[in-house]
Amino acid sequence: MNQPLTLGDTFSQAEYRTTGNGPRSVKVLLDALRDVDGDTPSDMYGRGETIEKFERKLADMLGKESAVFFPSGTMAQQIALRIWSDRQGSKAVAYHPLCHLEIHEQDGLKELHHLEPILLADEERLITLEDVKKLPENVACLLLELPQREIGGELPDYAEIEAISAYCREKGIALHLDGARLFEILPYYGKTAEQVCALFDSVYVSFYKGVGGIAGAMLLGDADLAQQSKVWKRRHGGDLISLYPYILSSEHYLDLRLPKMAQYYEEAKELAALYNAQPSVRTRPEVPVSNMFHLHFSGLSAEAAAPVVAGVQADTGIALVAYLKEISDTACATEIAIGDLYEAVPKEKLHEAVELLGKRLSEAQK
Amino acid sequence: MNQPLTLGDTFSQAEYRTTGNGPRSVKVLLDALRDVDGDTPSDMYGRGETIEKFERKLADMLGKESAVFFPSGTMAQQIALRIWSDRQGSKAVAYHPLCHLEIHEQDGLKELHHLEPILLADEERLITLEDVKKLPENVACLLLELPQREIGGELPDYAEIEAISAYCREKGIALHLDGARLFEILPYYGKTAEQVCALFDSVYVSFYKGVGGIAGAMLLGDADLAQQSKVWKRRHGGDLISLYPYILSSEHYLDLRLPKMAQYYEEAKELAALYNAQPSVRTRPEVPVSNMFHLHFSGLSAEAAAPVVAGVQADTGIALVAYLKEISDTACATEIAIGDLYEAVPKEKLHEAVELLGKRLSEAQK
Repeated sequence: MNQPLTLGDTFSQAEYRTTGNGPRSVKVLLDALRDVDGDTPSDMYGRGETIEKFERKLADMLGKESAVFFPSGTMAQQIALRIWSDRQGSKAVAYHPLCHLEIHEQDGLKELHHLEPILLADEERLITLEDVKKLPENVACLLLELPQREIGGELPDYAEIEAISAYCREKGIALHLDGARLFEILPYYGKTAEQVCALFDSVYVSFYKGVGGIAGAMLLGDADLAQQSKVWKRRHGGDLISLYPYILSSEHYLDLRLPKMAQYYEEAKELAALYNAQPSVRTRPEVPVSNMFHLHFSGLSAEAAAPVVAGVQADTGIALVAYLKEISDTACATEIAIGDLYEAVPKEKLHEAVELLGKRLSEAQK
Repeated sequence: MNQPLTLGDTFSQAEYRTTGNGPRSVKVLLDALRDVDGDTPSDMYGRGETIEKFERKLADMLGKESAVFFPSGTMAQQIALRIWSDRQGSKAVAYHPLCHLEIHEQDGLKELHHLEPILLADEERLITLEDVKKLPENVACLLLELPQREIGGELPDYAEIEAISAYCREKGIALHLDGARLFEILPYYGKTAEQVCALFDSVYVSFYKGVGGIAGAMLLGDADLAQQSKVWKRRHGGDLISLYPYILSSEHYLDLRLPKMAQYYEEAKELAALYNAQPSVRTRPEVPVSNMFHLHFSGLSAEAAAPVVAGVQADTGIALVAYLKEISDTACATEIAIGDLYEAVPKEKLHEAVELLGKRLSEAQK
């Protein structure tokens, strides 16, 4: 008796993958260490050249006074908001209802820091200047996530961010950037990281999203914020004696993939257009603004769509979808993020696979 | 003009080192990864064979129901105490005044978890059963650190721990073991890790003290505690997408060094006896009970003693002391921890170096 093929199995066994940079295996670390001298000394509790040089590099790249390396963005962002809260003397902070801090961190911000988030906009759309203008007087900090990952990686017009930034400065509200995917949006805006970050008082960036590192994050801002964040890093248990496995790999993959972000962006637009040509398939955004988008299938539940997609992956050798998330009884979706692997997929085979997917999804709805 | 030789320089440049396992360089990670298959999949947010297998191994070794890997002991122990506090409905926890949570964590326990520690015993001695009996009724958890690092790694008699454990169980006080150096004390007690841990309700062990890994810790206890600790790990920002650099290296060095703990203990006793034969030099404990002890120089400040020790290290090629901590104007101390390197030190040269140190320290006092 054959087990039905799962999405995950057919995705990982396919000859070509349309998304990502490849499996998250130990090879990712080995590759990053290949050219590192074994005598390179460890960082020691946040000190030493291994960590300080990388912090300086990011501070310069993003145009901020100081940078502090963190094991995770969860830790870095809670701490950033806590520091703004303490400085402004208010527990009120504002962010989107689908902010990482609201839905993926087991309420650490509330349980550990007792901050009181105000949710702006709604689960279907981005935060606008109009939303920000309705904030109460006492808000310490507004967090903007660019791109807004949970709605497919949408972005506001650049002028909207500039207007929000100007308004926050006028009102004395600290503006924090959740830049987990900052490098991924620069080609769309046609701006440098420094230009975007100049609109914000503090910035977090991640090294394992588009960058494809192992883990790790950087928090950037003024020198006082950096110094205070180190105290909180120690309190959180993140001031490890050695963070170099993450630091060295973060730097390696940042150097490797920063120059490729424009290519990923173009490829995301190309792939999204292929999907949007199929019935029952649409992408959000319709035209991607970074390397990512969400892929929505209508007319089928995740349970009904999964074997269809798995069959296409098994029959064509092209991995399209790693998992499906239920939206409703007749809708499901997945996240697509373009990385190194897309360019190796033969275009003709890709077109065939996407067309076959469209055809079989339509048939399955009947 | 010659710069005076520093302690640190002469320590790291000496031909032989009496302490530790060698420099904390990237080589430590490379060695650990040498035999790891590059296709080994990453752990993913605390799941997957890479992390679960190691957690199971430690749970079995220490005789606890469940184990959870943490990036740091700081995170693991705050969380353990928070869970006991929530379970018992009391913010009162008890530990030694030189507990890691009290002096090395920027008050994370208080700032993040709002726990209220009661300090038992004093900075000069271990916690006794008599101290524990004076605790108020409402104490949620007592933390015992074995060995008590900040006073040289002293240990209570095993019967005293058994009595404290029995008392805590009778009174409903959770007993938590700070076992950062648990493996190091087993030869002295002549007990297995499981026997020691059976006296405690929860246990933390570290993988970068005597074990000599890169970073990482394990928290062990009942299955509920493990499950709750994972929620808090996420809140602290410690539930990284990938912890495998620490997991793989922790397992590698644990396997390598667990069988050597008895040897380190014997060597620590040998070295301490050499030091204690010198005037103005004494060790605490006088006879070590693990691989560690503190080395005290009397009659000289750290500033006065440092060039004397540096000179001995430069002249003999034997590294004895990496740093000196000021105790008073006429006393200073350092921590000694025996590791892999001690056995390679030629005994005759070692005796000469220690005798020369004793002689020069006496001369310097005149």
